[in-house]
Amino acid sequence: MCPHALIPYKPRNPKTRLSEVLEPGEREKLAAEMLEDVLCTMREMCCMPVIVATELFDHEVTQITVTDADLNQTLNEILPTTTRDCLIIMADLPLADEASLKRLVTTGKDMAIVPGRGGGTNVIYLKEPWKFRVAYYGASFLKHMKIAEEAGLSVEVIDSFRLHTDIDEPDDLVELLIHGKGRSRAYLEELGFTLSDEKGRVGAVRKR
Amino acid sequence: MCPHALIPYKPRNPKTRLSEVLEPGEREKLAAEMLEDVLCTMREMCCMPVIVATELFDHEVTQITVTDADLNQTLNEILPTTTRDCLIIMADLPLADEASLKRLVTTGKDMAIVPGRGGGTNVIYLKEPWKFRVAYYGASFLKHMKIAEEAGLSVEVIDSFRLHTDIDEPDDLVELLIHGKGRSRAYLEELGFTLSDEKGRVGAVRKR
Repeated sequence: MCPHALIPYKPRNPKTRLSEVLEPGEREKLAAEMLEDVLCTMREMCCMPVIVATELFDHEVTQITVTDADLNQTLNEILPTTTRDCLIIMADLPLADEASLKRLVTTGKDMAIVPGRGGGTNVIYLKEPWKFRVAYYGASFLKHMKIAEEAGLSVEVIDSFRLHTDIDEPDDLVELLIHGKGRSRAYLEELGFTLSDEKGRVGAVRKR
Repeated sequence: MCPHALIPYKPRNPKTRLSEVLEPGEREKLAAEMLEDVLCTMREMCCMPVIVATELFDHEVTQITVTDADLNQTLNEILPTTTRDCLIIMADLPLADEASLKRLVTTGKDMAIVPGRGGGTNVIYLKEPWKFRVAYYGASFLKHMKIAEEAGLSVEVIDSFRLHTDIDEPDDLVELLIHGKGRSRAYLEELGFTLSDEKGRVGAVRKR
């Protein structure tokens, strides 16, 4: 139960859809803390993480550097050379925990997948990575289901909101404040974010 | 495994946050189709559904009518008189399926709960409903966790995106188009909604 884990990550100018509530440096720091939360869960699971980053940055974890547009190409060069089971997990999933990820790595199918909010793909687990290729961006969940079918791979779709919730937009910060336990949630609180409860609708507000 | 199911429902002027993409009559019809999807899943599970509606409306299922503001009060009058286990499930969860709900009704704890997007509560399962009281609206998930603790009830939080995804806002329609299988998804398609994939961000667009 200790698959390798590929973690795509963008250290520079990440999370642009959070620009209305976070300064550029804050977005970078939040992205870095979310990566740490994911790495922490990887360590709990005894996974061997490899960061697939768009730029080289200072970190002790093994890195592979790609240009942003080439994430699919880079992953599709790695997968055929992989000799054992493998997770591909996004770095913006601070709610990911061991219980939710165990549901993927213990699947009885050839692969397990978690759709992201808005049609994306947040996590893929592959028992035989060399039989699969990725197609991220856009409605990648539907594309990945089709690729699996064409490759003759059986698929389990994992029904998890912790893994479904990528932190992309201001509304997503509410989820992190309610359900987060790690460094990224602590950083949000340090920045002054708290839950507000106005007109029956909960939001994340910032007290400066 | 056949609990009673209380289903709060608002037949008139529902889903106002969908007003920018749906006419009033369309919002009512979509809400009605989502209710049918939930009722269909209840039938698959052999649950006995009771609709807790804000107005009397034409339906063969048993109804209890409440005024909108009194949902908590009404449910809190019903719960102490309940003599067996009970689900409380919102009517705007068309992605709810038997597999996800089974995870609640087979819990080893006194109750199971599913947080909704934005701090709400989408589903509660109670083995001994007479020991609990509800506090919907706002950050009700956190309130319900506190009430359970005060009542000495053990709680399992069910990690399901199918039950986490309530259909409230235009962005949520994407989830229904991707993951829905029932009448509400078919109605959306009938209205002309399809997935669009622009700039790597998937949306639901309507062709009129």
